[in-house]
Amino acid sequence: MKIAICPGSFDPVTNGHIDIIERASKMADKLIVAVLENSSKQPSFSTNERVELLKKSTTYLKNIEIVSFSGLLIDFAKKNNARLIVKGLRAVSDFEYEFQMSLINKELSPDIETVFLTSAAKYMFLSSSVIKEVAKNKGDISAFVPKKILKDVVERLSK
Amino acid sequence: MKIAICPGSFDPVTNGHIDIIERASKMADKLIVAVLENSSKQPSFSTNERVELLKKSTTYLKNIEIVSFSGLLIDFAKKNNARLIVKGLRAVSDFEYEFQMSLINKELSPDIETVFLTSAAKYMFLSSSVIKEVAKNKGDISAFVPKKILKDVVERLSK
Amino acid sequence: MKIAICPGSFDPVTNGHIDIIERASKMADKLIVAVLENSSKQPSFSTNERVELLKKSTTYLKNIEIVSFSGLLIDFAKKNNARLIVKGLRAVSDFEYEFQMSLINKELSPDIETVFLTSAAKYMFLSSSVIKEVAKNKGDISAFVPKKILKDVVERLSK
Amino acid sequence: MKIAICPGSFDPVTNGHIDIIERASKMADKLIVAVLENSSKQPSFSTNERVELLKKSTTYLKNIEIVSFSGLLIDFAKKNNARLIVKGLRAVSDFEYEFQMSLINKELSPDIETVFLTSAAKYMFLSSSVIKEVAKNKGDISAFVPKKILKDVVERLSK
Amino acid sequence: MKIAICPGSFDPVTNGHIDIIERASKMADKLIVAVLENSSKQPSFSTNERVELLKKSTTYLKNIEIVSFSGLLIDFAKKNNARLIVKGLRAVSDFEYEFQMSLINKELSPDIETVFLTSAAKYMFLSSSVIKEVAKNKGDISAFVPKKILKDVVERLSK
Amino acid sequence: MKIAICPGSFDPVTNGHIDIIERASKMADKLIVAVLENSSKQPSFSTNERVELLKKSTTYLKNIEIVSFSGLLIDFAKKNNARLIVKGLRAVSDFEYEFQMSLINKELSPDIETVFLTSAAKYMFLSSSVIKEVAKNKGDISAFVPKKILKDVVERLSK
Repeated sequence: MKIAICPGSFDPVTNGHIDIIERASKMADKLIVAVLENSSKQPSFSTNERVELLKKSTTYLKNIEIVSFSGLLIDFAKKNNARLIVKGLRAVSDFEYEFQMSLINKELSPDIETVFLTSAAKYMFLSSSVIKEVAKNKGDISAFVPKKILKDVVERLSK
Repeated sequence: MKIAICPGSFDPVTNGHIDIIERASKMADKLIVAVLENSSKQPSFSTNERVELLKKSTTYLKNIEIVSFSGLLIDFAKKNNARLIVKGLRAVSDFEYEFQMSLINKELSPDIETVFLTSAAKYMFLSSSVIKEVAKNKGDISAFVPKKILKDVVERLSK
Repeated sequence: MKIAICPGSFDPVTNGHIDIIERASKMADKLIVAVLENSSKQPSFSTNERVELLKKSTTYLKNIEIVSFSGLLIDFAKKNNARLIVKGLRAVSDFEYEFQMSLINKELSPDIETVFLTSAAKYMFLSSSVIKEVAKNKGDISAFVPKKILKDVVERLSK
Repeated sequence: MKIAICPGSFDPVTNGHIDIIERASKMADKLIVAVLENSSKQPSFSTNERVELLKKSTTYLKNIEIVSFSGLLIDFAKKNNARLIVKGLRAVSDFEYEFQMSLINKELSPDIETVFLTSAAKYMFLSSSVIKEVAKNKGDISAFVPKKILKDVVERLSK
Repeated sequence: MKIAICPGSFDPVTNGHIDIIERASKMADKLIVAVLENSSKQPSFSTNERVELLKKSTTYLKNIEIVSFSGLLIDFAKKNNARLIVKGLRAVSDFEYEFQMSLINKELSPDIETVFLTSAAKYMFLSSSVIKEVAKNKGDISAFVPKKILKDVVERLSK
Repeated sequence: MKIAICPGSFDPVTNGHIDIIERASKMADKLIVAVLENSSKQPSFSTNERVELLKKSTTYLKNIEIVSFSGLLIDFAKKNNARLIVKGLRAVSDFEYEFQMSLINKELSPDIETVFLTSAAKYMFLSSSVIKEVAKNKGDISAFVPKKILKDVVERLSK
């Protein structure tokens, strides 16, 4: 069974993330969406909340599993017998950082491959931080996050 | 009456900002220079100080107004009947961020247009943070900020 | 009367160009769409054809004029009393070239300002050369060029 | 059976290409290495030569097939029942062009996915054109092309 | 005597830094490796530790001196009669920042020249922060830091 | 005696080139300005003309020599006992290409070092091709090329 990993902070998940997750789920028998616990940065949503929002958004995808992880991605991949890491790219600055991370991961573990998908054009401007900024200022984020979690995200961020 | 907005942190205003403000002021009947209150980042100058330094630097420009704002730029623009946002660009990294912001603003409010001016070559290296770094270390910043505020900025930063 | 210029090769005009032209037309009393004769590069469509395709695509825009020009853009702008050049940007590589051109034009003629609009996300991937490549290989370009000229472009490129 | 395509000019194939082909071959049951006939650019090696050099270099890879194609990549992919296009990326400029091509291919054919692999660090500087430049000037290219084709490439380029 | 400066945070020194230091040491009679005290960012290693790790790693280089400094680099250069600043570049994002710093330093002190060396390909993915991330998670960093300091760095970061 | 090389097409030399040549001349006992014969691209000025324009522009620099070369830069450097190649950088796109060339040159000849200088801000927009475009269209290029060759360049390009 071919297992792939789609890692991220998902703080919170956006329509852009969902697009990448859907496409990645077709590239493997099982896709593990791995939520980084991210102890250094202070996320807006707790690890649990981020996992729950992802689960609620992706009930229609049958071959995915949503879990959280801490530590090195490469170790998490090995423990889960995953040989493929799938990442979405939006812009040149994304690209440079991801390029470096893929090279160091290759160095640490030559058997694990990182592949990149390009963001759909309509989601290129979307990021979790932009959504939070808009929501906190009572702007309309209904075009940016999955319908099933819109209310959750808006309520949580307007507190 | 055509109203444009030139938003920024202006922490503090630089000769590069002044160049963009002058050029933007010719593109509208009234230009609102909008100082972002920026609650997440800790600015070096208070909102009031930043507004005052801008006012002192631009007394010769007759069709501009300096105000502060919080919240979404797009909401501020609507409230002020402004249809045009003018931003200066210095470098590729600026460009990517501004590109994303202009796309999301377009999504939130299709009637408001963002236009970009390129920084004059001689100001391409200038940023508020570089000026603060130089001033704090007793370096000479007289080539980087308007003459009228040089003393204010130097005194304030050497404290 | 405020006159702006939107220059380009338009070989042929794309939906992305039309988006920029529409938005630019709101920024001036009159917008001159200026088709570069481009003697060094061999265009696929003649200058006349490119002008005609633009005219056919923009009949609904009342304040625009489509003309061709050769020589320096800055001289063309002066002759037409235009103070504003409007350009669309799609990507970082566009940006660098346009940045350099705007700086040299500023040097040659400080009174003429260049402003940039960012391409709509959905047109970011569109370029005249990509359209020609697709059309020559019998691919479907109906999503990429204005409906009114689709047949003209397809026929012309399948010869 | 999962079929992937690795397209390129391969004029001639480099060690960098081989690295991408090896890694891509692990991502599918069958990998089609597709040599673009490239009628607009004048290649240094004929289509036949490019196919033969690739075959000679990859005899140890059991699940690949080397063929040439003309026309749109997306049509070639469909005809071969391939759902995956695999491309290597070396630099930011590569990235922007490939980004645009992947978006337009997505538009033309939403079912076909393009994924990107990052070049191994040691091959980041390698390109077919650099190798040709070095070989034509009697420089040593033994570190840049597969051993099995070194003599062929050197002889052919020193003519 | 020609004196050059190679500035950085070196938090901690990596094999990539050592490569740049070695090459820079050949470009001057004396090379001062200048460890920025960096009061704004919280380094992982103290200034003293960073100086000691550098010393331990470079005992075989006879014409270098390792010191720490605070304040403006340009002032430190003048005090030490250095006319040359040598910096390594890994990526486009490095480049833009360093470009701006070199322009402002040129403005502040036209006599001092900044030159850039490109990182060796095999070290392009290396950064101090990546090494710390790997080491903290018990990953293997023996390929990334000089052998002589490997134990020190690992012990220090696993605390 | 330390010998450095400053290579380029210089078709024709610009004020930006002169700035780099002056600065590079201070970094070595002798600087060889090496004019690439460039057989693949069709230059606007002959090799002889390009050498003569450089000579006329730099009579005041005592430690430089202007020569033309063909073949690999690295071979030319070795033949002239030069250990240092000096290049100017203007923009990100320059950077990527030069980065690749410096890596391949390092691979071909580890003893020869390439260093980069950043273009002065006021010359960032200058390129030989832009100057030719302006001059051919009777624009004023007096701010872009050395005074001593202005008449030569203008006459030659208006033919």
